[in-house]
Amino acid sequence: MTLKRSIKDLLSELNFNDHGLIPAIAQQHDTNEVLMLAWMNSDAVIETLRTHDVCYWSRSRKTLWRKGESSGMKQKLIEFRWDCDADTVLLLVEQTGVACHTGRRSCFFRAFRNNSPQTIASPRIDSSKLYNE
Amino acid sequence: MTLKRSIKDLLSELNFNDHGLIPAIAQQHDTNEVLMLAWMNSDAVIETLRTHDVCYWSRSRKTLWRKGESSGMKQKLIEFRWDCDADTVLLLVEQTGVACHTGRRSCFFRAFRNNSPQTIASPRIDSSKLYNE
Repeated sequence: MTLKRSIKDLLSELNFNDHGLIPAIAQQHDTNEVLMLAWMNSDAVIETLRTHDVCYWSRSRKTLWRKGESSGMKQKLIEFRWDCDADTVLLLVEQTGVACHTGRRSCFFRAFRNNSPQTIASPRIDSSKLYNE
Repeated sequence: MTLKRSIKDLLSELNFNDHGLIPAIAQQHDTNEVLMLAWMNSDAVIETLRTHDVCYWSRSRKTLWRKGESSGMKQKLIEFRWDCDADTVLLLVEQTGVACHTGRRSCFFRAFRNNSPQTIASPRIDSSKLYNE
């Protein structure tokens, strides 16, 4: 019950947007690598804090999205943080395998270098093997 | 002119939301510390790439926000990256002083520890001295 009340305190502190969502940055806890950004609603926050398996809200599928449920590429929550305006979440995680659906470790693999958009990382896992069920 | 064309290529690749905005994460380039999240419109992207001084769009003031213009706490752009869905930007930056208006290095100084919301970092600079002009 203590947990429930404390999560309620947290939820009342967070500023969800007009769609009831808040952006969440996932960062590998030991290397500080930024892995991805996704969105959470209050249910995703509750689910993440209760299970310590990171859960987002899928804006395209309009459903809770338990990260890695299909692919196995889960994110274990190490710490839940938020910012001064309480309108962005920072999740310190232990990422299993890769965060990106393309098979790359991080979703941020495009960069503007030498005045042109470039791809700066290669897949570590064949993405067709991530979603073959 | 090459620069202009290449920035145009980049802008056509990025997916701005219905308000013409895209979230941008600022990360200290050498330590990988996540400093803040703010929003950019296309003009902020152009200004940032042209000057290498990071520029955001202030949603509250509805104007371009040249980071550090009042406080001196500038962000020099080291690299401009974006993600697989091209709907989030990651800015690798050299942060002068502190990123947060509270005087803290990072805006992410609140954490859920021991089942309660806690403040995990102290100001490095007196925030009243950041905006005293």
